[in-house]
Amino acid sequence: MDLAARLRRLRLELKENDLDFLLVTHPPNIRYLSGFTGSSGVLLIAATKSGTKPILFTDSRYRTQAREEAPRVKIVIGPNPPSRTAAGWITAQHGTSSVFLGIEAESVSAAAYKQLASLLKGKVRLSFAPPLIERARMVKDAAEMAFIRQAVKLGATLFDTACKTIRPGIKEIEVAAAMEYAARRAGAEGMSFPTIVASGERSAIIHGRASEARIPRSGFVVCDFGVILAGYCSDRTRTVQVGQPSKGARYLYNSVLEAQLEAIAKVRPGVTCAEVDGAARRVLRKHKLDRFFTHSTGHGLGLEIHEAPRLAVRQDQKLEPGMVVTIEPGAYIPGKWGVRIEDVVVVTSSGCEVLTPGDKDLVVI
Amino acid sequence: MDLAARLRRLRLELKENDLDFLLVTHPPNIRYLSGFTGSSGVLLIAATKSGTKPILFTDSRYRTQAREEAPRVKIVIGPNPPSRTAAGWITAQHGTSSVFLGIEAESVSAAAYKQLASLLKGKVRLSFAPPLIERARMVKDAAEMAFIRQAVKLGATLFDTACKTIRPGIKEIEVAAAMEYAARRAGAEGMSFPTIVASGERSAIIHGRASEARIPRSGFVVCDFGVILAGYCSDRTRTVQVGQPSKGARYLYNSVLEAQLEAIAKVRPGVTCAEVDGAARRVLRKHKLDRFFTHSTGHGLGLEIHEAPRLAVRQDQKLEPGMVVTIEPGAYIPGKWGVRIEDVVVVTSSGCEVLTPGDKDLVVI
Repeated sequence: MDLAARLRRLRLELKENDLDFLLVTHPPNIRYLSGFTGSSGVLLIAATKSGTKPILFTDSRYRTQAREEAPRVKIVIGPNPPSRTAAGWITAQHGTSSVFLGIEAESVSAAAYKQLASLLKGKVRLSFAPPLIERARMVKDAAEMAFIRQAVKLGATLFDTACKTIRPGIKEIEVAAAMEYAARRAGAEGMSFPTIVASGERSAIIHGRASEARIPRSGFVVCDFGVILAGYCSDRTRTVQVGQPSKGARYLYNSVLEAQLEAIAKVRPGVTCAEVDGAARRVLRKHKLDRFFTHSTGHGLGLEIHEAPRLAVRQDQKLEPGMVVTIEPGAYIPGKWGVRIEDVVVVTSSGCEVLTPGDKDLVVI
Repeated sequence: MDLAARLRRLRLELKENDLDFLLVTHPPNIRYLSGFTGSSGVLLIAATKSGTKPILFTDSRYRTQAREEAPRVKIVIGPNPPSRTAAGWITAQHGTSSVFLGIEAESVSAAAYKQLASLLKGKVRLSFAPPLIERARMVKDAAEMAFIRQAVKLGATLFDTACKTIRPGIKEIEVAAAMEYAARRAGAEGMSFPTIVASGERSAIIHGRASEARIPRSGFVVCDFGVILAGYCSDRTRTVQVGQPSKGARYLYNSVLEAQLEAIAKVRPGVTCAEVDGAARRVLRKHKLDRFFTHSTGHGLGLEIHEAPRLAVRQDQKLEPGMVVTIEPGAYIPGKWGVRIEDVVVVTSSGCEVLTPGDKDLVVI
């Protein structure tokens, strides 16, 4: 990981935002800037190099782990919560009212914020920092791309397991169990979200986690699944048909597939997220299915399964080379059926590369 | 679920705390009071019955799910974030400066709080509510106890899978994979936390998630694992020995076991959490191991894997019948080895019942 480059960029951003320090509290951001993966810790970054290394405040349970995972930061062990230790350190070292400290307001609770504000009152000026690290994380560096490619590749293989397992009468949860077992045996640290195996009418439920329901004799099965490998997430959806598909089923499937391909074709630097979303929506409108497409077209992914940018209406963020996003339109007719097709793509200098392998013709089981 | 009783109790508490409304934002609390499990939603509870049913604000993705899971609350679908929809509803219906609205300050971000405060300014008085629902949730009702017993029973069986799988040369992650596969096939919704399989020197890492490391020819393997069943968590730790244990290994194991039994013997209504923690710590001090016991003795569990109360120093919360807690002392010699033994117990009228089945003699593989 080129932590030095990440820190250099962040320090410039801090200066541009008139912040002397940033208190990093969002765990994926802490990992991004230090390597530390523990559940209790805050990272303090100084805008100038005079503050030398970033400081990781954590508790004694993480002493060994912090040293191993984050060898390039200074580690301070203290009582919980670590944000209090950090506040004490800042006021002791830099306690003048001319020091500006930014916080990540989305990941600090109102209660913790109140406590921080009271500890720092009159000593340090506290403000809500813009999502600087989230913005930086949208564009993946070389090390991240290598991890994401591995995760997507491993994740994609689970669809083969699903196809081998799905048959009428088997429980959805057994299909998920087989997929997750294959993932873990292949080295996945875990699943990036609860595995969705939604069959029959349940295929119309967007977040249809694998349940005790049995796969019916015919109908769609939406499989949406992802792994975590070296901290990075994969995400893939395929919808298969059990039994011979009706004309209506083929129409629904092909419409969603057309929308997905159109959206992928739209992806290139300078295009806004809303334009990509619009491309998928336009195809479904043509097929009179747009009102059944009730979520956004995609999302960034990396250390988190959902991260910036969002491919949705009114999102004017422009795509840049190195951004990694999902493209996953769907159509869901409540009480009847649903289809979703999803790939992960990386924006290139001239368009995009689809990272998820495999074709997307309707698989009939 | 006796949602009506839960609501009745909460309404009394709201009145005692001079709150007209509580905006419930912590997902397990929303589930506890309504049944809704979606990832986007806030629940508004009125202190008086005049406000009739609780209102669940969510977005269109959860329309069907909300109706199915939460038939006894009013459902309002709006744009994201739902807290903004809720704020609009409150000001429209009850917008006078004499209305007091409590929020869950631990689960609202500083950013969301600022937005809420600005939306409600001059219309509703906002304050941080005490953790009323967390306190209520400490004591489990009959429906919850049934779920917890099932989860603990299923979770405990995974240790049999672990014992069958552990052998020198196999990867820790393969042991975890087998355990998780067994859990899913038995109907678990997922694991309640990342499975810990920590062997050899890694047994000294308290949160030693199953890794690519191979089980050595001899030494401890700490297995800490739990399932989620019907929303409720289980949690169990067993430490097994691969190869013949040395005298030192037996000493360490037996010391931790003695500490665990002492702590369990201490559990009864009226005893403080700190006293239970102290009982385990005293045994380890006697064996000169207390400085290697670097975490707390246990925690409540239920809809969350870690919830109130905490069995740790200075925790003066008294135990009450119906509280469900883990008892899990350990000792970890960095770079050498570690042992932890954990059961789930429920406080009864005269002591406690150990819910986790099975004996705790050292298993040698």
